[in-house]
Amino acid sequence: MKNKTNFKTSDLQKMDRQNAVHLINSLGGFKSVALVGTSDVQGNTNLSIFSSFFHIGANPPLIGMIFRPSPPERDTMRNIMNTGFYTINHINEQIYKQAHQTSARYNREISEFDATGLSAEYKNNFAAPFVKESNIQLGIQFKEKIEIAINDTSMFIGEIVEIFIREDCLSEDGFVNLEKANTLTCSGLDSYHKTIQLDRLSYAKPDKEITSLLKS
Amino acid sequence: MKNKTNFKTSDLQKMDRQNAVHLINSLGGFKSVALVGTSDVQGNTNLSIFSSFFHIGANPPLIGMIFRPSPPERDTMRNIMNTGFYTINHINEQIYKQAHQTSARYNREISEFDATGLSAEYKNNFAAPFVKESNIQLGIQFKEKIEIAINDTSMFIGEIVEIFIREDCLSEDGFVNLEKANTLTCSGLDSYHKTIQLDRLSYAKPDKEITSLLKS
Repeated sequence: MKNKTNFKTSDLQKMDRQNAVHLINSLGGFKSVALVGTSDVQGNTNLSIFSSFFHIGANPPLIGMIFRPSPPERDTMRNIMNTGFYTINHINEQIYKQAHQTSARYNREISEFDATGLSAEYKNNFAAPFVKESNIQLGIQFKEKIEIAINDTSMFIGEIVEIFIREDCLSEDGFVNLEKANTLTCSGLDSYHKTIQLDRLSYAKPDKEITSLLKS
Repeated sequence: MKNKTNFKTSDLQKMDRQNAVHLINSLGGFKSVALVGTSDVQGNTNLSIFSSFFHIGANPPLIGMIFRPSPPERDTMRNIMNTGFYTINHINEQIYKQAHQTSARYNREISEFDATGLSAEYKNNFAAPFVKESNIQLGIQFKEKIEIAINDTSMFIGEIVEIFIREDCLSEDGFVNLEKANTLTCSGLDSYHKTIQLDRLSYAKPDKEITSLLKS
């Protein structure tokens, strides 16, 4: 087994600031990354990449995300607060460079849809724009903002109210084949990855061997 | 472009309950999955798999996770509240079946380390056990519990105080090569995936082309 390097929190203070940010951003493992689509009350669209989504519960279907007080995220936050709705759109291999480009600090009056060439899609009378090129699109209704005082960030909780899934990606048991949808994951601040499924494992019980759910 | 299936929240009520849970658990994309190691005040160890980690901030280095009020997670939560410390250990291809097995509802007096054959490792006088077989291990100090009233779950915020990384996985700029560490990601409730890096992309700026950070 190879040796491990050890850092303590105090070592991070001595590191180059940006390197420390990169290190800490890497440590949580692979992240859920997606594009958040919003519009302001005039209908001007905004699109921004986020990598801090997490499952909160299935009934009601709730998804959380973290907002930092930085400029690109601020437009998205304001639009959500003003309209009550947003979309979450999975990123695939065809659009990940455009998705990454939405993290640039564009002026507020510029739509990242226009700047990156991604297509805004309105459907089912949902108030916020979806990303047409995305294979899995979620329409979210804002439910609650929880302030995280310890470092001046915010958690937003939203309810999934509209789901669009490319039909060949949905399994009989409700499992969504994200790999078939070509959904990507990211690590650190700038690394994008596709995936290879190892297995689906049976529900774990004490004193029972785990088995594969995939047909061999 | 293939057709998309559309669900609304009201459709979920008509679905088989477990299928709906599986669907919603899939929609957030690939997840950060890892093993959380704790001990009670007598030193009895506990190990449990979680897939709800998210980055909250780099300075101080904070990581969040969601707890559901279900039995396997309850032991971990109680140990964290009583001792103030826990470990987060990345999962690799060699141990993912054992990691999945920790989700079984073992009696409280049984250690999942013993039940699954994973090795508890104590080092640097840290109060909670690490998983020896893991290539990236984090020692976490509990900071704050935030109740999520909307569905009776809890968010725990912890500060990363100890970091152990297999030394060949750390890049000069602070980026951690999770793929080299063989860190896995998961989707839905039971699917495990390894990854293939597509690229690392340059910091995005308006009117500037994104470039690859990888040497070609």
